[in-house]
Amino acid sequence: MTEQNRGSLVSWREDIKVLDCTLRDGGLVNNFRFDDAFVKALYQANVQAGVDYMEFGYKASKDIFKVEDYGKWKFCDEASIREIVGENPTDLKIAVMTDVGRTDFKKDIIDRKDSVIDLVRTAMYIHQIPSAIEMIEDAKNKGYETCANLMAVSKVNDQDLDNGLQLLADSCVDVIYLVDSFGAFYPEQIQRLTDKYMNFAAKTGKKIGIHAHNNQNLAFANTIEGLKDGISYLDATVCGMGRGAGNCYMESLLAFLKNPNYKLNVIMDFIEKYMLEMKKHYHWGFDIPYLLTGVFNSHPSSAIDFIKEGRTDYSRLQQELMDMD
Amino acid sequence: MTEQNRGSLVSWREDIKVLDCTLRDGGLVNNFRFDDAFVKALYQANVQAGVDYMEFGYKASKDIFKVEDYGKWKFCDEASIREIVGENPTDLKIAVMTDVGRTDFKKDIIDRKDSVIDLVRTAMYIHQIPSAIEMIEDAKNKGYETCANLMAVSKVNDQDLDNGLQLLADSCVDVIYLVDSFGAFYPEQIQRLTDKYMNFAAKTGKKIGIHAHNNQNLAFANTIEGLKDGISYLDATVCGMGRGAGNCYMESLLAFLKNPNYKLNVIMDFIEKYMLEMKKHYHWGFDIPYLLTGVFNSHPSSAIDFIKEGRTDYSRLQQELMDMD
Repeated sequence: MTEQNRGSLVSWREDIKVLDCTLRDGGLVNNFRFDDAFVKALYQANVQAGVDYMEFGYKASKDIFKVEDYGKWKFCDEASIREIVGENPTDLKIAVMTDVGRTDFKKDIIDRKDSVIDLVRTAMYIHQIPSAIEMIEDAKNKGYETCANLMAVSKVNDQDLDNGLQLLADSCVDVIYLVDSFGAFYPEQIQRLTDKYMNFAAKTGKKIGIHAHNNQNLAFANTIEGLKDGISYLDATVCGMGRGAGNCYMESLLAFLKNPNYKLNVIMDFIEKYMLEMKKHYHWGFDIPYLLTGVFNSHPSSAIDFIKEGRTDYSRLQQELMDMD
Repeated sequence: MTEQNRGSLVSWREDIKVLDCTLRDGGLVNNFRFDDAFVKALYQANVQAGVDYMEFGYKASKDIFKVEDYGKWKFCDEASIREIVGENPTDLKIAVMTDVGRTDFKKDIIDRKDSVIDLVRTAMYIHQIPSAIEMIEDAKNKGYETCANLMAVSKVNDQDLDNGLQLLADSCVDVIYLVDSFGAFYPEQIQRLTDKYMNFAAKTGKKIGIHAHNNQNLAFANTIEGLKDGISYLDATVCGMGRGAGNCYMESLLAFLKNPNYKLNVIMDFIEKYMLEMKKHYHWGFDIPYLLTGVFNSHPSSAIDFIKEGRTDYSRLQQELMDMD
């Protein structure tokens, strides 16, 4: 990675890919219950805004999860995606996520020649890497682009992370993601981790991506820190919609990127027409309880429960999180 | 500035000073109409949380501004402050802000020996530096600590900024502030500007401070970027309360700083008891219109008007801001 490739504030880099995961991470807010008009409009907005990838949701196992408990984007049936995109005669690529142990990948991931899906992203924890690689190899053999999303690395020690990154670097995966599941990292930690990921990636020609959470109001800052340090795949969601404190804002990211293919005004119109209504019904984004789980490097579930229960005793939550540590 | 002085993520620096400007910048949201119970509780919270300075508001001219149009923290009469703090028998220092051309400083800034105020901060635009230095010299001669808050530097070219910083570095001021009035800067710009400010400061032994706005959700990120690069005076407000998109969150900042004197739980209790109610009556914080004025390096007033008028045509605002550029 040369300095030139890392770009400057007035240039743009060809290697940058923006991935919209509004349906997938936002689906964790509304149980994937997006109506078709919303999904079609988001698809069209992403096409027009020049976004590179749109993730439609999870390929969850129907043996493990009951279909009636979720909206259809928990499962991303081929037919469901085709209802929105047809044959997808656009430059926007289609992505889905598979979870280790929660996807019937051998059956539910069909050959790419029969699918409109382009990219299969596999999410894993550190101890699941061998299982994830089996899934990634399966997807790769079926013709897909592949990503490895190694979650919760803020809980992983350096030695384990090095070993895990070596396994992924030696695998057939195309992109390895730095994932800040708990919104626990500060930019200078992202810088150090990016250097580490980039070093592993350089050996075997992988790309690196980043998926940030906004617990400490740092999702966008951490995304552009990683970008500056050489990361090329950037996850974002419209209005930051995502579990708990949410994600990097698509509108901030497109405003920052200087590639003239990206059209911020299209996302602005989508926000006006669709997201204002969505915000009336569902709650996400930076708030004190999420800040606290971020600070204490803890899963956001305790903050989500705290808010659901209508609690406001923030200093007690702080104490509880310290006790859990 | 040695590397050691810049600290690490697990250490803390003695030179760091946290300044709470909730009343001053937050006063721009509610026209300085804080009731005494709120101000007393904030004062006590700052004392207990180990915050270093609390800014009470402006020392505005009563010839220019009508007393009946504002709450009393627009004027910060000595008697008003004493009603809250008595003789201020604490380690918390008291600050006020004076604006060039809007303060009767010769009359309204009294000798420090007769005042509970410790620090006078003078706000100026680049062309007002000579007038500001006259005010700073007056305050210094009366015995106060002094800050120079050079605003809106995102609109100032490098040559003018160098000349202005040289004037301030040669003055008697104690601290020079890097102020991102429009929330327009990205962290890598803060890094470059901090290096510039630190170089001017090093020549004459000044300290550097940072005052960030949250238009692009970067107020906290930019504050800790400046901190990492050697800045020692850090402005923040509780819940980020401040004009438009608001400021760096005090609760994020204290959670980040490792000095054991800072007590996050005290601020958590203040938020529960006072800020939840405040948020019901007044609106501030990150929102799409503020993002757009930040992106276009524009005063937030057009975003404030946009929101007041109940407009949601974000892409039209984007166009208007491009036309204004």
